Amino acid sequence: MKYVIGVDYGSDSVRALIVNTGTGEEVATSVKYYPRWEEGKYCNPSKNQYRQHPLDYLEVLEASIKECLSTSPEGTAENIVGIAFDTTGSTPVFTNEAGTPLSLLPEFAENPNAMFVLWKDHTAIKEATEINELASKWEIDYTSYEGGVYSSEWYWAKALHILRQDESVRKAAYSIVEHCEWIPAILTGVTKSSDIVRSRCACGHKAMWNEKWDGLPGEEFLTTLDPLLSGFRDRLFEKTFTAEKPVGKLTEEWAKRLGLTTNVVVAGGAFDCHMGAVGANIKPYTFVRVIGTSTCDIMVASREDIGDNLIRGICGQVEGSVIPGMIGLEAGQSAFGDIYAWFKHVLEFPLNNILSKSTVIDDEAKQKLIKETTDKIIPALTIEAEKTPIDESTVIATDWMNGRRTPDANQKLTGTIAGLTLGSTAPRIFRALVEATAFGSRAIVERMRDEGVRIDNVIGIGGIALKSPFVMQTLSDVLNMPIKVCKTEQACALGAAMFAATAAGVYVTVEDAQEAMNSGFEHEYIPNPENVEIYSSLYEQYQKIGEFTATHA
Amino acid sequence: MKYVIGVDYGSDSVRALIVNTGTGEEVATSVKYYPRWEEGKYCNPSKNQYRQHPLDYLEVLEASIKECLSTSPEGTAENIVGIAFDTTGSTPVFTNEAGTPLSLLPEFAENPNAMFVLWKDHTAIKEATEINELASKWEIDYTSYEGGVYSSEWYWAKALHILRQDESVRKAAYSIVEHCEWIPAILTGVTKSSDIVRSRCACGHKAMWNEKWDGLPGEEFLTTLDPLLSGFRDRLFEKTFTAEKPVGKLTEEWAKRLGLTTNVVVAGGAFDCHMGAVGANIKPYTFVRVIGTSTCDIMVASREDIGDNLIRGICGQVEGSVIPGMIGLEAGQSAFGDIYAWFKHVLEFPLNNILSKSTVIDDEAKQKLIKETTDKIIPALTIEAEKTPIDESTVIATDWMNGRRTPDANQKLTGTIAGLTLGSTAPRIFRALVEATAFGSRAIVERMRDEGVRIDNVIGIGGIALKSPFVMQTLSDVLNMPIKVCKTEQACALGAAMFAATAAGVYVTVEDAQEAMNSGFEHEYIPNPENVEIYSSLYEQYQKIGEFTATHA
Repeated sequence: MKYVIGVDYGSDSVRALIVNTGTGEEVATSVKYYPRWEEGKYCNPSKNQYRQHPLDYLEVLEASIKECLSTSPEGTAENIVGIAFDTTGSTPVFTNEAGTPLSLLPEFAENPNAMFVLWKDHTAIKEATEINELASKWEIDYTSYEGGVYSSEWYWAKALHILRQDESVRKAAYSIVEHCEWIPAILTGVTKSSDIVRSRCACGHKAMWNEKWDGLPGEEFLTTLDPLLSGFRDRLFEKTFTAEKPVGKLTEEWAKRLGLTTNVVVAGGAFDCHMGAVGANIKPYTFVRVIGTSTCDIMVASREDIGDNLIRGICGQVEGSVIPGMIGLEAGQSAFGDIYAWFKHVLEFPLNNILSKSTVIDDEAKQKLIKETTDKIIPALTIEAEKTPIDESTVIATDWMNGRRTPDANQKLTGTIAGLTLGSTAPRIFRALVEATAFGSRAIVERMRDEGVRIDNVIGIGGIALKSPFVMQTLSDVLNMPIKVCKTEQACALGAAMFAATAAGVYVTVEDAQEAMNSGFEHEYIPNPENVEIYSSLYEQYQKIGEFTATHA
Repeated sequence: MKYVIGVDYGSDSVRALIVNTGTGEEVATSVKYYPRWEEGKYCNPSKNQYRQHPLDYLEVLEASIKECLSTSPEGTAENIVGIAFDTTGSTPVFTNEAGTPLSLLPEFAENPNAMFVLWKDHTAIKEATEINELASKWEIDYTSYEGGVYSSEWYWAKALHILRQDESVRKAAYSIVEHCEWIPAILTGVTKSSDIVRSRCACGHKAMWNEKWDGLPGEEFLTTLDPLLSGFRDRLFEKTFTAEKPVGKLTEEWAKRLGLTTNVVVAGGAFDCHMGAVGANIKPYTFVRVIGTSTCDIMVASREDIGDNLIRGICGQVEGSVIPGMIGLEAGQSAFGDIYAWFKHVLEFPLNNILSKSTVIDDEAKQKLIKETTDKIIPALTIEAEKTPIDESTVIATDWMNGRRTPDANQKLTGTIAGLTLGSTAPRIFRALVEATAFGSRAIVERMRDEGVRIDNVIGIGGIALKSPFVMQTLSDVLNMPIKVCKTEQACALGAAMFAATAAGVYVTVEDAQEAMNSGFEHEYIPNPENVEIYSSLYEQYQKIGEFTATHA
């Protein structure tokens, strides 16, 4: 019996999962929340500043793996042969020459600019604009494998923003590392930033790394962008690696801290959705959607399928970012469940701003009542929304309340709710918002197809895929494709486990690991032909509203 | 000391007001709700069917005048010299040859089709479309003094709809009477439908009556529309009268029922907003807005000012419909306060659908808590909305949740909320809705001006004008005009009292009555120049969204 550990670093917590490599059985799992992050430290939501302390990552790693082992059958720890990590991204940090994130040095311990800049940090909007402007004029378009639009959520925009903002960090910054690269490095005892194994997935999708132009963008491009970037290119890296390649083995210190042996092979890192797609048993022509607050959509295609096509307006196409040897395509919606949560928050106004101040009942009962009511808003909206016939109402919405990630990234776009009448109820508006998120999904699928990417079916993973049959059925109807939902509740960690098993030599290829370790599917949603037709015409309206908004935003 | 009574029949209740003709002092007032209507009888909101029983009108008239008299100084009743009535409209009913509404006959007592069809009844949408289609092809455009678009809320559409619907009514129907014509008729003892004094205001604005084509639309037009209308034109009327003309005196029976003398002169009837504008002391170039659930906007202009202009897209222009001898112009928004009420209702979802089922507290406390919270929603939204700077957010809305009345009636239009982000709060959306209602107001003002109608200032009356400084300041900023709000809370009844005083000969002209009896102003809102500028550019966005919606609705 051989076991592996898949570790999934999410936005708020880490999840560790021990998996049997022979059967894919999920032996034990544990979730631990980042302690400093939970307190709201180092963040400023009003400025969209979201930073995470490296100690948060290390402390929860230790705690979650120990908890996993404590609930596993005896002898499991000794038979663990590999470990792999996925993280959010782009989540970079400045390091010193030793590859240590600056915030681990005493003088930077409380400086948010010396910490990991979480994917959703939007402080670098200006820098992203500058990168796009320069890239469009440059002889090589370095953004071309990242969909043609560079985002403020990514590597260079964030790095440049901090270099401009913070003189102390500027002086101490030697290199940059992504969260998914740093964890394998520290666990295998790397002591030089140049020895860090760089992630194909992270660098290809977010740092404009591509073999076509010998790696990172040229020094001249970077220094034209800003002389502050001078020298970084040489100190960073030339090569990147796919995640099934072993990075090394656990150091004695870390083996002890985690309760494992020094025989454990540490795999390379990658982003959560990419490993999640592997965990969801992605194959060519399958569109894997990680559906939560936002979506991350992943596909794989062979070089023969894609040829030299540059897919317009997606988040990137990178060889080996998902399955080694195949081209990984990334797309996504900036907001999905977040739109439902937004509407819920709007509806909470009478509870939070009025009822909370009432003196009719005591504070304890009030708290209980508010919590109970708040928790039931989305379930109650869902029950009522399901009852309304699709074509009964005129309400139609777009899904750009958090801008648009794909197709054609545009963070300035906003959402619209149209077709409102005095009879438009909260459930009907909720239904329109669910439909809007499905229409946004269809826009991605249609773009892929327009660009010659074949899509046959859909796999859903993530919280909403497992929890909301209403949303998933709507999505199936709007996309006019069957949608399978994975049995596993932790596709990302399971995907990481598959990479761990491959890195440890249990399997030769990631595909072999998928074959042996996948969880199977819990449910398949089949499109309802009647709804498909109605939604096709509503989708045209969605497109018209979208065009209008995009033109006048 | 001479007194008059102004009686204002609203949608839900009647209000009687005793006024001192010398000073305008409001001596006594009383409000009574229609009993059958309050029970929801004869209505079907899901089909937009709203009918009122004539007995409701008579019973509340008696009750309200008696209550007024009981709270007036002794001797008041003897010194009452006139009474006048305003009503909603177009609110017609079929009568027999005696001019009796069919529902007062035993065989029709419970038949909604034999009752008054309230202004907001939308059962006749199809008939309105047919009228518009035929009118656009006819050699005379009979809709031209009604803004060029005939509405389902009006006279002929409603009459035709019922003739088609109900064979029993069809067989018994001899003539048609508006609510504002029937009350003076019954109080003065009219026993033949041909003796009913017809209202210039009602017939000119709603029945396509105009001197240009010798009264009502020609028989050929009506029978081409539908042979069912054959014969009505001859049995209806040729002449119409302005409301300051005496109709007669109270019959003995009615003098007794109301506690008045048979010396009381009964004036002609008109619609509430038209008399309200008089009560608000309307002058030429003043835009009087009755602001409640919807708005009714009234102006007066001299023939010299307007010339032969046909004002496009308003609700009508009728000589004498407001001030005798001047042209009354009517416009309005289909929803104003109703839009705020709609949003409130959306926000009530967690209270009404979730909290109401909770077992955390007992039913009595729950009811109290829900009522208390619900009642405070709009005040709390207002407090929070006032705090947000105008240009801080991108949310912008249109005000067509109940279609558009003017400019250019289009009941199929719907409302839009655009510019939404995940940070758009309930108060910010509320603010956008308030701005939307103000933008809708501006569209009316701009249309009037485009058509050559001069507007210098605005007078506000009605619930919202008196109750919401936030809405009124926003309106002043968006219109870039000062807005005066009348002191009187019952401008319509006060206006009716002015007509009563003129009909009774206390004053020679309505203008004289206005001069002596007006209430003065409680407050004047002055536009804030900074906001004016911002709103001008937001108004352009409103127009663009409107154009888009109108094109794709």
